Amino acid sequence: MKIIVVGAEGDIGKAACAELGERHDLIRVGRSSDDIQVDMSDRAAIDKMYARLGPVDAVVSTAGDVHFGPLQEHTDETLMLGLKQKVMGQINLVLAGLKTVVDGGSFTLTSGVLDRDPVRMGVGAATANGALGGFVVGSAIEMPRQLRINVVSPGLLDVSVPRYGKWFPGHNPVSSKRVGRAFAKSVEGAITGQVIIVE
Amino acid sequence: MKIIVVGAEGDIGKAACAELGERHDLIRVGRSSDDIQVDMSDRAAIDKMYARLGPVDAVVSTAGDVHFGPLQEHTDETLMLGLKQKVMGQINLVLAGLKTVVDGGSFTLTSGVLDRDPVRMGVGAATANGALGGFVVGSAIEMPRQLRINVVSPGLLDVSVPRYGKWFPGHNPVSSKRVGRAFAKSVEGAITGQVIIVE
Repeated sequence: MKIIVVGAEGDIGKAACAELGERHDLIRVGRSSDDIQVDMSDRAAIDKMYARLGPVDAVVSTAGDVHFGPLQEHTDETLMLGLKQKVMGQINLVLAGLKTVVDGGSFTLTSGVLDRDPVRMGVGAATANGALGGFVVGSAIEMPRQLRINVVSPGLLDVSVPRYGKWFPGHNPVSSKRVGRAFAKSVEGAITGQVIIVE
Repeated sequence: MKIIVVGAEGDIGKAACAELGERHDLIRVGRSSDDIQVDMSDRAAIDKMYARLGPVDAVVSTAGDVHFGPLQEHTDETLMLGLKQKVMGQINLVLAGLKTVVDGGSFTLTSGVLDRDPVRMGVGAATANGALGGFVVGSAIEMPRQLRINVVSPGLLDVSVPRYGKWFPGHNPVSSKRVGRAFAKSVEGAITGQVIIVE
């Protein structure tokens, strides 16, 4: 398969690429250091990316920022950041890609653990993750041409523990290998409309 | 208790008011025909409302618009409508109310069935509902002063069937009485961080 991976430079993106790269041709897309640079918040830039890369079998997104901070310091703007960047960024990748992904192809988005196993300062991520789960459930039943869509919801990755572990007390880190397999399940499998939990 | 009910004029709002009004003093807030008019998308207007109404024991929100339409006709703007109106409108009511609700008081928001039992054209609602579930889970653990927060997620109300039933094939309508009780469970009970499903 020919697969676009957006956010390939992050920890989750690397895990997805390590697994999918064993069997497929990957087109790595990122904001900076990857093969192709695209600003996910810019719908025109996403359209241009698809026009340039042409038909693909699958789109994988592991990109999207949220604001971390205490509930009482959150504002309209800080909560909207996650809804714009992590949610609408990934949703725009789907909406723009509905005509570019081949019949029977797939979209795989990424959310995370914080809407089911919350931590302090994680409400922005929890809100965004929940929205992505809802989008996948709601959109799967309307996908044209046997397209599929799922979202991978991983726990804290083992490789992310040095940077983020202190914010996730008691969370069991998940291996990058298991996270990579979740993307394979979505891309190579037949399921759709699922939140694929990796714990 | 003294309870603010935002969106009191809608079908769900009426169900909440019918139940809670039996035992509590309700301050009905809406966009048009209710006792007090507030534009939920305007944070300054919400702040002004709380300043005017003073300390309350609970805030109930049943307000929030989403765009209904086929997936392939959705755009950044139509999906953002639900995230702004239904999600951020209700979230702003919480953020602005953190200092106005009394110790041990509660917030009760409203989502809906479409992120777990989707229908055609419902992806905007599914996305918004998921976001609200995530927000409640993420924010409950950081609430100050024993404040609680839940979201009621009702199926299609029996009284809404004449207007919306044709979009919900095979969905079992739920009685307004059962929906009202879910708000009582949140406001008068002790649970927090829960999506209270009414089916």
